[in-house]
Amino acid sequence: MIRIIHGGVTAPTGFKAHGITCGIKRSKKKDLALVVSDKLCDAAGVFTSNKVQASCVVVNKDHLRDAKAQAIVCNSGNANCMTGEPGFENTRSMASATARHLGLKKKNVLVASTGVIGQPLPITKILRGLPELVKGLNRHGSDDAAAAILTTDKQTKQMAVEFNVGKRRVRLGAICKGSGMLHPQMQSPKHATMLCFVSTDAVISHAALRSALERAIEKTFNSITVDGDMSTNDMVLILANGMAQNRVIVEKTPEFRLFCKALEMVCLVLAKQMIKDAEGATKFVEITVRRAATSEDARLAAKAVASSNLVKCALFGCDPNWGRIAAATGYSGASVDPWKLTIQLGREIVLKNGGRVKKDASILNCIFAKKNIRIVVDLGLGKYAATCYTSDLSTNYVRINSAYRT
Amino acid sequence: MIRIIHGGVTAPTGFKAHGITCGIKRSKKKDLALVVSDKLCDAAGVFTSNKVQASCVVVNKDHLRDAKAQAIVCNSGNANCMTGEPGFENTRSMASATARHLGLKKKNVLVASTGVIGQPLPITKILRGLPELVKGLNRHGSDDAAAAILTTDKQTKQMAVEFNVGKRRVRLGAICKGSGMLHPQMQSPKHATMLCFVSTDAVISHAALRSALERAIEKTFNSITVDGDMSTNDMVLILANGMAQNRVIVEKTPEFRLFCKALEMVCLVLAKQMIKDAEGATKFVEITVRRAATSEDARLAAKAVASSNLVKCALFGCDPNWGRIAAATGYSGASVDPWKLTIQLGREIVLKNGGRVKKDASILNCIFAKKNIRIVVDLGLGKYAATCYTSDLSTNYVRINSAYRT
Repeated sequence: MIRIIHGGVTAPTGFKAHGITCGIKRSKKKDLALVVSDKLCDAAGVFTSNKVQASCVVVNKDHLRDAKAQAIVCNSGNANCMTGEPGFENTRSMASATARHLGLKKKNVLVASTGVIGQPLPITKILRGLPELVKGLNRHGSDDAAAAILTTDKQTKQMAVEFNVGKRRVRLGAICKGSGMLHPQMQSPKHATMLCFVSTDAVISHAALRSALERAIEKTFNSITVDGDMSTNDMVLILANGMAQNRVIVEKTPEFRLFCKALEMVCLVLAKQMIKDAEGATKFVEITVRRAATSEDARLAAKAVASSNLVKCALFGCDPNWGRIAAATGYSGASVDPWKLTIQLGREIVLKNGGRVKKDASILNCIFAKKNIRIVVDLGLGKYAATCYTSDLSTNYVRINSAYRT
Repeated sequence: MIRIIHGGVTAPTGFKAHGITCGIKRSKKKDLALVVSDKLCDAAGVFTSNKVQASCVVVNKDHLRDAKAQAIVCNSGNANCMTGEPGFENTRSMASATARHLGLKKKNVLVASTGVIGQPLPITKILRGLPELVKGLNRHGSDDAAAAILTTDKQTKQMAVEFNVGKRRVRLGAICKGSGMLHPQMQSPKHATMLCFVSTDAVISHAALRSALERAIEKTFNSITVDGDMSTNDMVLILANGMAQNRVIVEKTPEFRLFCKALEMVCLVLAKQMIKDAEGATKFVEITVRRAATSEDARLAAKAVASSNLVKCALFGCDPNWGRIAAATGYSGASVDPWKLTIQLGREIVLKNGGRVKKDASILNCIFAKKNIRIVVDLGLGKYAATCYTSDLSTNYVRINSAYRT
């Protein structure tokens, strides 16, 4: 029903993108991206729940008050956060200059920034880069745009799918970045520095678009962690230009559920890509907590295990030290009865109802030596489950983040 | 008024201690400790708030129901946690065998364990070591006992003070361990693996003893973090044998305040010693949040900054990347207004009322290159303050904890 197709944010009809080097990054890698729709879009966003928010987060919330947008301009290499009133002026300049070059209204341009916090944004470089950026916009520009939003990421992250609504083919595509300062807790319109820009040519009501986005992020972006540090700049933006000319998608219909499924699929693939590309990561780890007393408990416990430095160090060291998993579960805040606690590493149960199940060390070592590891924590208290995705904590993570600005 | 004196847990009148190698640690370092009072003591304890608790935590709560104890036996190298019913039997065996050797009642012996979680306790080695341990008890045994409770700690931690109550000289001493899985949140009788055993010869009412302990831990042990991982075995135990023959100390008196001050001084010195000896640590960092709207907000913000992996990596890298401090403050859960936020590194204000204060990079680099670093976050919202103590996150921390069991 839902088919994965080639391309990212430019796969849906009517979207162009581009990405260039404007000179913010000393590395001379691409650092300025633009995504534009041919037509004005219904738009929605979810933002970091950090109380210290970058000016782009604040400005976008304002620009989204009419739920309309047509372009997203994004720089990497500088977060433009905690830069005072000049920071806000710079964000507004990015929006208004982009609008002028595109012949749009300023309020229909959304802005994103990612990089170092607390440094003045080199706005002159951005403004000088805009003509080249706009000139280069094209129907296959997703690769360049995806490259230009990266910071410490090693790989670009994009994904697109298509499905039918009635007889119309609807497409949905996205680009995404994020590998550190990654512990998104996004809310609407409150709460990741992860950035994700989603485009679709679907015709969809605003309520349905917003609801689909809010549902999609919980089990995807809000269920990943690299280092437990929630960013000041996290955002997911979605633009729907209606050019697929399908019958309007509204809530509580099979078409809405299909749209939600497609959006969640795209978000989940991108969320997993972020973990696979996490700073210093050598492992991809899926942690499922099941039989929790409440859904909140399931989520708390999965997040605690996924965020535990000690669990993550054990994963890096290929040491199946499951006692640390038990400890993290115990301090998560979830209801836990140690006598009902069961822990499974890969296919091996190592703890059952609070008692150690003796297993051959070589078997457990093998499981933890793999690149992809699955951990299941069964609380034995109820019927609720949650899954989180995390990386290991490596010496390279520390190296990358102890010299991030140098 | 309060004088620091030589000695640790055996400094107060009537306490003996000893520590030996019984063979739990492969390294052949000391791993079995005993502290004994000549007389039955009033006793109190605070324990980890982790819902997964080692059997020693559960057994001690039971043994402390009559608020009396005379001895503490402690092994290192094995946490005896998540070891099922056999684990509980082993803890009870440790207590009863120690009681038998000392001619005490089992319920007057407290037990502590620290080390790997989920491995069967080598109880036979412990029982075989007890005769030597008891035989070696002496008035200067604090050094040996302090050594025998260590795990990854590089140094022993002990402290003693004396002060006068009326004309009587009262002493208070302690030994302590902890360098990783260190994020104590102890409650009474609910909530560190930090272990601290405090002895005093004061005559003090049980209510006053318990109240003094609960007050002392908040600004000391509960205000430190190494890795954010709360242990299953944390505990602070205090024994008061009354041999100083002072007039009984009761709450709401100048003597009680003096006792509290002495206890808090001992706990703070030991808490700081743990951070200085933290796994892989190269820095000692003091984070004060002030002008918070509530005391809980002050505490939340200080804990968040102290626990942030990114802040701790920046400290390791000597990179004064204060944007990470702002981000951690913002996601702490405390009320934060970015426009009122001020951040100070050492004596240098780098952010004032939400705007960057430009400082010479070399000055800031110098501050972060120091071994002792003070960070102040001023929320500008109220009158409450809190201080937390933390270490940096080094490549060595990851190495130590990725190979902890090997």
